[in-house]
Amino acid sequence: MTEPAYVAVDWGTSSFRLWLVDRAGKVLAERRSGEGMLAAAKTGFAAVLQAHLAAVEAPDHLPVLICGMAGAKTGWVEAGYVDTPAPLAAILKQAARVPGEARDIRILPGIAQRDAAAPDVMRGEETQLLGALGLQAAGEAMVCMPGTHSKWVHVKDGTVASFSTFMTGELFSVVSRETILSLAVANAEDAEDVSSFRAAVKAAFEAPAFAANLLFGARARQLLFGGTPAAARETLSGTLIGVELAAGLSGAVPKAGITLVASGRLAALYRLAFDTLSVTVQQVEADEAVRRGLSMAAAAIWTK
Amino acid sequence: MTEPAYVAVDWGTSSFRLWLVDRAGKVLAERRSGEGMLAAAKTGFAAVLQAHLAAVEAPDHLPVLICGMAGAKTGWVEAGYVDTPAPLAAILKQAARVPGEARDIRILPGIAQRDAAAPDVMRGEETQLLGALGLQAAGEAMVCMPGTHSKWVHVKDGTVASFSTFMTGELFSVVSRETILSLAVANAEDAEDVSSFRAAVKAAFEAPAFAANLLFGARARQLLFGGTPAAARETLSGTLIGVELAAGLSGAVPKAGITLVASGRLAALYRLAFDTLSVTVQQVEADEAVRRGLSMAAAAIWTK
Repeated sequence: MTEPAYVAVDWGTSSFRLWLVDRAGKVLAERRSGEGMLAAAKTGFAAVLQAHLAAVEAPDHLPVLICGMAGAKTGWVEAGYVDTPAPLAAILKQAARVPGEARDIRILPGIAQRDAAAPDVMRGEETQLLGALGLQAAGEAMVCMPGTHSKWVHVKDGTVASFSTFMTGELFSVVSRETILSLAVANAEDAEDVSSFRAAVKAAFEAPAFAANLLFGARARQLLFGGTPAAARETLSGTLIGVELAAGLSGAVPKAGITLVASGRLAALYRLAFDTLSVTVQQVEADEAVRRGLSMAAAAIWTK
Repeated sequence: MTEPAYVAVDWGTSSFRLWLVDRAGKVLAERRSGEGMLAAAKTGFAAVLQAHLAAVEAPDHLPVLICGMAGAKTGWVEAGYVDTPAPLAAILKQAARVPGEARDIRILPGIAQRDAAAPDVMRGEETQLLGALGLQAAGEAMVCMPGTHSKWVHVKDGTVASFSTFMTGELFSVVSRETILSLAVANAEDAEDVSSFRAAVKAAFEAPAFAANLLFGARARQLLFGGTPAAARETLSGTLIGVELAAGLSGAVPKAGITLVASGRLAALYRLAFDTLSVTVQQVEADEAVRRGLSMAAAAIWTK
């Protein structure tokens, strides 16, 4: 086993991931837990981090680089924002040092769009972007990063020109749990229902204003025509994703298509949605992208 | 005091209203409570009704006419649906008698749109429509009935041609309570913020696909530019109503404008939204409309 060079941490709202990395960028050890910002704000950020560092036997002198909500005002140490137009390279230069710690611990800043007509913020996705596109990416990319708060990012020659956040994942969560649709999707099996999903994506993409009507239709369809809870769930999911795509694809799409930064089930759903609309997609694994972004930043800060 | 002729009940999902009415349609007594379908399904519909009848000293022989969710499958007695195209007059003829009761108690049916591409149902609004438009309404009307599940109804010569339900009110409720926007609207004073509301209505009406982005913007705006919780709440409200109006007004609007069946704060908000879009509105009081509809039905059934 080679010597560890630094520790990389993706510290989100509700998840914590840590990698022990060597000078060449190779992962020597990994930790995952649910101790995101919300949990760590109660138990203490330093204590959470220290426990995971001890578990991977990280030497005392080893520096730690963090991205994500740990850098929010309600996080550990506020790491500020790089404002749009934001060169991805600027992120590396504005990491905030955590004070009062013997160890060199830094948190990468987010990106802010200080446009009164379209205010927006991201924390963590800037590091994913760095890993997905690299520092020197020439040309244009439209990057779709699905999640609780999906981001659509317009990147030009390595600079984030503008971006938009959509509450798609969070809407799916509250609508399926807390509204009349909870009756429709209750006890849905894991089985997919591709045709319901595709139909919903198409309907919502073509008439996004009817989103709140298409959602209710999932319940009315069950009352009048029957249908499985899985079909209702896929209709709900397809409707919300279809509306997001209607907005995201409303501008010019680069020739190379959309860069989809996603993993797992979410990646599969969005690929299916883009396919339904005959839109070309290049997928980048989200988990790898954030680790690669952190590694690039750590290399720039400590191992150059 | 004149003799009571019948009892009219509007029995919704979460509210119960009862009126003691004389032969001329005059209200002799009124009761309101939170014992809607959800509560009554636990305590028993007959018991809830009997307690209110006793409170207004309704004679034993007095008939009772009910509209709303008490007639749903999960209600007291399933009252079925009249299918679209649904003549409002047909509602009067399909009231379901509650079995096993000495008293003559009937529940009015809802309306179903058995269209596989746009399935929809209403229960209670059909009686409001009857009261708002009357039985013999000639010509066309586009009726907007805001609420937890807003209805937009196309009525032609006294017949419901088609309708669409929007989960606007329910979305407002869950988004303001259960998502990241709960941080933005927390402790909002009652003070209105008309300019935030109007701006949100306009933005959502013009770009409904961006609804989930405009919602997140209410939070991002606060983070980057400050702003009151009331402004965030009005942005949330205006966005959801603006999207609903984009859909509702996407077809042809009758020359007379939109018939708005609403009461109280909801009526004020929707009037403001329509005004922002320069759409003519004729308002009908929702509370009066449902009572008038029940009275018309009761008169047709018992006092003709």
